[in-house]
Amino acid sequence: MTTLEEAARLDAEDELAAFADRFVPITDPGVVAYLDGNSLGRPLLSTGQRLQELVTHEWGARLIRSWDEGWLELPGRIGDELGRVALGAAPGQTIVADSTSVCLYKTLRAAVALRPGRDELVIDTGNFPTDRFLAESVAAEAGHTVRWIDADDVRAEDVAAVTGPRTAAVVLSHVDYRSAAIADLAGITRLVHDRGALTVWDLCHSAGSIPVELDAAGADFAVGCTYKFLNAGPGAPAFLYVNARHHEEFAQPITGWMGAADTFGMAARYVPAPGIRRALSGTPPVLGMVGVQEGVALLAEAGIERVRAKAVALGRWVLDLADAWLVPLGFTVASPREDARRGGHVTVRHPDAERLSRVLIEHGVLIDFRRPDGIRIGLSPLTTGFTEVRAAMARIRELAA
Amino acid sequence: MTTLEEAARLDAEDELAAFADRFVPITDPGVVAYLDGNSLGRPLLSTGQRLQELVTHEWGARLIRSWDEGWLELPGRIGDELGRVALGAAPGQTIVADSTSVCLYKTLRAAVALRPGRDELVIDTGNFPTDRFLAESVAAEAGHTVRWIDADDVRAEDVAAVTGPRTAAVVLSHVDYRSAAIADLAGITRLVHDRGALTVWDLCHSAGSIPVELDAAGADFAVGCTYKFLNAGPGAPAFLYVNARHHEEFAQPITGWMGAADTFGMAARYVPAPGIRRALSGTPPVLGMVGVQEGVALLAEAGIERVRAKAVALGRWVLDLADAWLVPLGFTVASPREDARRGGHVTVRHPDAERLSRVLIEHGVLIDFRRPDGIRIGLSPLTTGFTEVRAAMARIRELAA
Repeated sequence: MTTLEEAARLDAEDELAAFADRFVPITDPGVVAYLDGNSLGRPLLSTGQRLQELVTHEWGARLIRSWDEGWLELPGRIGDELGRVALGAAPGQTIVADSTSVCLYKTLRAAVALRPGRDELVIDTGNFPTDRFLAESVAAEAGHTVRWIDADDVRAEDVAAVTGPRTAAVVLSHVDYRSAAIADLAGITRLVHDRGALTVWDLCHSAGSIPVELDAAGADFAVGCTYKFLNAGPGAPAFLYVNARHHEEFAQPITGWMGAADTFGMAARYVPAPGIRRALSGTPPVLGMVGVQEGVALLAEAGIERVRAKAVALGRWVLDLADAWLVPLGFTVASPREDARRGGHVTVRHPDAERLSRVLIEHGVLIDFRRPDGIRIGLSPLTTGFTEVRAAMARIRELAA
Repeated sequence: MTTLEEAARLDAEDELAAFADRFVPITDPGVVAYLDGNSLGRPLLSTGQRLQELVTHEWGARLIRSWDEGWLELPGRIGDELGRVALGAAPGQTIVADSTSVCLYKTLRAAVALRPGRDELVIDTGNFPTDRFLAESVAAEAGHTVRWIDADDVRAEDVAAVTGPRTAAVVLSHVDYRSAAIADLAGITRLVHDRGALTVWDLCHSAGSIPVELDAAGADFAVGCTYKFLNAGPGAPAFLYVNARHHEEFAQPITGWMGAADTFGMAARYVPAPGIRRALSGTPPVLGMVGVQEGVALLAEAGIERVRAKAVALGRWVLDLADAWLVPLGFTVASPREDARRGGHVTVRHPDAERLSRVLIEHGVLIDFRRPDGIRIGLSPLTTGFTEVRAAMARIRELAA
């Protein structure tokens, strides 16, 4: 079942199809399909409008008064809403701030400080470079050792093999950036806790794509970006989650005024704010947060369960088309075939993937290439359609033949 | 000479007067004067337009391709231009990134690492909270001691008194956030270097307001924000300067992918990028940088020397009016009277300043209050007029009487 009729049927049955109209249309006639929303989600129409309003009315007319009229509360307010809609996090535990790298640094430092006497950090060799680089950086400054999990698809048993009484924290991605394999967040968190260590979850490829249940899993820390499935914009601020049970002891070293108990008190010494606000440092990036706010609001309207259901259906559709059209041409599927284990993209591998990716992009099939030989097909349920996916897969078949 | 005619004459002679038309008009009829551009500069009309274009055309239509079509280069490109126009910095030494807090943390860590065997950081008790908090945080993690300069207006001799063979770095603000006193950047840098230590300059209140000559002074590191005199927007990204002679050894611990030599290489180990790019961490905040780019471009058009000349004239005008109208009411002037020692604002003190500030703001005189008793009158040469200042001072006189 790879026909145009089948694609049309899937589009017709798609409960989220109308959401595509809420986004800035792709006016470039050369674009066949946008399958890179897992790198950069498309802009909402409302984000452009809100930015204009913000510049004219809040920044331009209310001026400095806007800080007291809502801006100062935005990191926590948007964080709470993101927690509610996408992360399974009760209010007061999530804030929007900095970049993922800076948030990761803060949480890793906090995790290490919370486990004195333990001198190892655990991470997998296949994790995203930033995560690995930061684990090594924080380990080096603490005199800790990095214990590597050498697995492409990290399972609880892989974590168990390297986690023990010396482990301070385990850093893992919830959804693998290459294969889209979903890690067992709850199971691994339980295991890590059983060994007395803490978890730092990178949710970059799950936030806004699959339901995350941080509180239910008892996760310690999490970070993630908002410019993929949350459509917040290029380099939009990241988010950081700290489970409430760690708030009192949570300490991070970038002690800027926004993390202080009395920001405008100009106190002689840094006293951390109560709660999650102590994870802040500098002045909140108001313009950048507009996209986060709009993206989270749209997700609330769509519902993360419906988004997930469509992501699964889109993934299955890609697999069907890949099996019918690409596997015979020498492609292999690098993502889990089991729906429950596959996140919001499908990766296919091809020996000539790097060159082929360039050709595809030139021909309007906007996917991305991940070394050494992966072509990532990103599926954004709020914007991606089944006919669009089919057109892209047909073009891949044509260009790879 | 405090007459309306004098104000009109000064406005008529103001070479920069026409620049005010380049900004979003203040439509709120209740605003008498905006004298808080040193907290939040007003938005340029072009910033709103560029944001719209960016959302629609770059993000919306070019999509992910925009990263290769210019976005990735923005931190360095805008940094270079900022360096040229406002900081006296040759290309390749300035980047736009993060918040001032994060940039300060990175430079402090780098400075400490560059001076092994030295175990003191020097800072003044009157410095901005973030700077003090971060100096203490970095000192604590390095096992260093903070040596405090207890002076309201830091002079070279104050620095000399606490700087010696144990000093790793000296952290100072170029322009004092309370009094607007200008520190002798070149002289203090020379003195600190003579003692074998490094300088970290906070340019938050000088960038875009007074010409800074970082290269000429041989300054080591500098950071600053862009949302004051550069009009880049609330929480817009900060900037970070590292003198080229330190690039090879410059190391900072927030080792995200954007600071790696091969960002998309997905390498096994972090290898820092050559040059200033190694100071980056996460994905650059593209929307936030629009305001920086526009603000720097307008400053280039106006010229920092003309901006400075008008800031001096506005400051003198405030002092004349304060002497005539406010000193008789119990105010004192807390800013240097010598033009060459006064930055872009004038602070007056009053025992009842906190309450009075609230009243002033309610009556449309948008100044800000700084504890314990300062009213800061911010002067933004690209938007502030002499008649506007006079109206505000008249209102202060009226409300304080």
